[in-house]
Order: sequence, then C-alpha cells, then structure tokens
Amino acid sequence: MQRSIQFWFEFASTYSYLSAMRIEDLAAQHGVSVEWHPFLLGPIFASQGWDNSPFNIYPAKGRYMWRDMERLTAQRGLRFSRPDPFPQNGLKAARLVMTIEAHPQRAAFVRAVYAAEFVDGLNIADDQVLIDCLSQASLPPDTLAHCHDTEIKAALMQQTQTAQAKGIFGAPSFLVGEELFWGDDRLDEAMQLAAEI
Amino acid sequence: MQRSIQFWFEFASTYSYLSAMRIEDLAAQHGVSVEWHPFLLGPIFASQGWDNSPFNIYPAKGRYMWRDMERLTAQRGLRFSRPDPFPQNGLKAARLVMTIEAHPQRAAFVRAVYAAEFVDGLNIADDQVLIDCLSQASLPPDTLAHCHDTEIKAALMQQTQTAQAKGIFGAPSFLVGEELFWGDDRLDEAMQLAAEI
Repeated sequence: MQRSIQFWFEFASTYSYLSAMRIEDLAAQHGVSVEWHPFLLGPIFASQGWDNSPFNIYPAKGRYMWRDMERLTAQRGLRFSRPDPFPQNGLKAARLVMTIEAHPQRAAFVRAVYAAEFVDGLNIADDQVLIDCLSQASLPPDTLAHCHDTEIKAALMQQTQTAQAKGIFGAPSFLVGEELFWGDDRLDEAMQLAAEI
Repeated sequence: MQRSIQFWFEFASTYSYLSAMRIEDLAAQHGVSVEWHPFLLGPIFASQGWDNSPFNIYPAKGRYMWRDMERLTAQRGLRFSRPDPFPQNGLKAARLVMTIEAHPQRAAFVRAVYAAEFVDGLNIADDQVLIDCLSQASLPPDTLAHCHDTEIKAALMQQTQTAQAKGIFGAPSFLVGEELFWGDDRLDEAMQLAAEI
C-alpha cells in the first residue's frame, strides 16, 4: 500500500497557505503521497458558536497571528499579504477543487488559489481570479461553471461532514490513518508518521 | 546586557508544562537567562467571554489536545497524567511564585508544581501538595501563608494585567523584548531571537 497523508485545508486559513506551499516537497522526500482535501470551516465554527474567524472574534489572537505569519513567511522566503476582507470566501474555490480528479492539477489549482489570496491579495470569490487559477493548473475556464453542479455542492458538504466526523476543528489538519494532527507546526511530525507506516 | 527571555506561564496550562520542563536547559545552551512570569488566564479568558478552559468549551479541540500532549510527552520522555478536575486551580501556586525572589528556587518550585499536577495527578490547590512543592525548592512550609498577603495578591493581579497589555492571550507565551511568541511550539524560535539580541 502506498504511504499517504491526508491534507485537510480551508481556503480562508492563513496557516493552510503555509502547508500548501511545502507539503508536496516534504512528502516527496519521505516517499509519501498527498491527498488534498478541501473542506469548509464555516459550518464547523458555527457549531462552536462562532460566526466569524476566531482571529477576528478574539483581537489579541488575531494580532498575534498576523505577526506570526509575517515571521514564518519571511523565514520560508514566501511572500505574504493580508487579504482584505479577511477571511476570504473560499466556497467556490473549494467546490472547484472537488471537480478536479487528477492529483497534479488539483494540487496546482490549490496552490494557485492560495497564491492569489495571500501573495497577490486578490479576492478568491472573484470568477476571473478563479479562471486564472484554473489556467495555472492547465484547466479550461469552463471548469468554473461546475461549481454550481448539485453533485459538486453535495461532495463539498460531504467533505466538511467527514472532517467533523474525523475530529477536525481547524485548518490545516493532517490525517495519517485515524491519527489527527492540527496546524502547520505538526506537518513534519505527521509526515514522519506517514513515512513509517 | 544579559540576554534574556520572559516565560509567561499559567499553572492550569498543559502546554506550559512542556515548556517549564525544558526552558532552562535550552536557555543555558543559548547563553540566555529566563525570567519566570506566572499569570492567570482566567481573567483573560473571561474578557474573551470564556468561563472555562477552551479545551472544555470546545470538545473536539480538547480531545485533540489530550492526544497531542500524549504524543509530545512520549517523544520527550516525560510522564503525563490528566488532572481531574481539569483545569486545576493554580491561584495559590501562582501567588506563591510571586513570593519567591531567587531565580533557582522560583524555577524549581514552578517545575515541582507542574510535576505534581501533570506527572502525579495531584490537586495543586491542596496546601499539603504546595508545601511539598516548596520543600522540593528548598523553601520552608511557612512560605505558604504568604499567598494570603495583600501585596502578593496585588502583585499577581499586576502580572495578569501586564500579560494582557503585552498582547498575551494564552499560555505558554514568550517575550523577547516586545516580540511575542505563543505556544511551546514557538519556544525554540523565541530562544533563537533572544540569543541573537
């Protein structure tokens, strides 16, 4: 059996950007394959009584996160801009991921969306931005229309339900078998476990 | 000027236990001195609308934390038991820290309290437990009475106000100058900065 890790990400999540940009290289070093799993934090946060990002609800936590992201992106040689508004609405982008079966295109599209959002500061709910991201993943512009397909909407809802059932409460999260790891800070440990199984 | 790092801890905090057990060795390797700063998360959490530990308020986050602590303590060769009830009431213990001026005794007492709580599963609000912790730090049992001193109570309240003013919203936190780091996961980065200044 191929050793694998599940990467659960939400497009609004700043720390998911960090993991999206490094997980494939890290996995390749460990001989592990990555399953890219979009989901929505909104319904999970709502079930916790939150109607916004915790970084907006709790200002001290938010101020810290932006500074922490500045430090981490600088250390890693990543550009970083703060999206306005934050959090961005990643619903259409997440649905589009569900339309992309092929692994390299799926990963490339996800990275393109994160770069649009956190490098270029673009609105990832904007159709033209999404079309550009599809193009970067060698996917045709008419892919965009599929984010309105009933089965795609249902597939993303199912992803979010699965995330919650697996115990996921934030992003990024990583699953190796049933073992859950939360946060870009745990990616290396999760990958190590995936490589050992 | 001596290079230094401020370690802000709360006795109820599981991840503070991890940092308390390693910060002095790490600091010694870097030629950095550690300032041990107790504070209370209760008033800070209350200002965020929480009347309990977020690990109790948000069950998925709590389940994850206990598993994460199991993994981390196993990796580090630390014993770990889950205190009952959680969170423990660390008010008297934190006040006692404020009575201890000498650095080695202060650090030794803090480590003894964390060990009582998270290794031996004892109630750290219990006077006999605290007397045993004082003893482990070569401090006399009558030190305990000082946790009722007006000036000690005020000093701990001031610590908590200072923590909040510095932007601290959780524990452990580390300050190097005005640069804030949150979580045992950031201790190495904070120490690196302290060593460079």
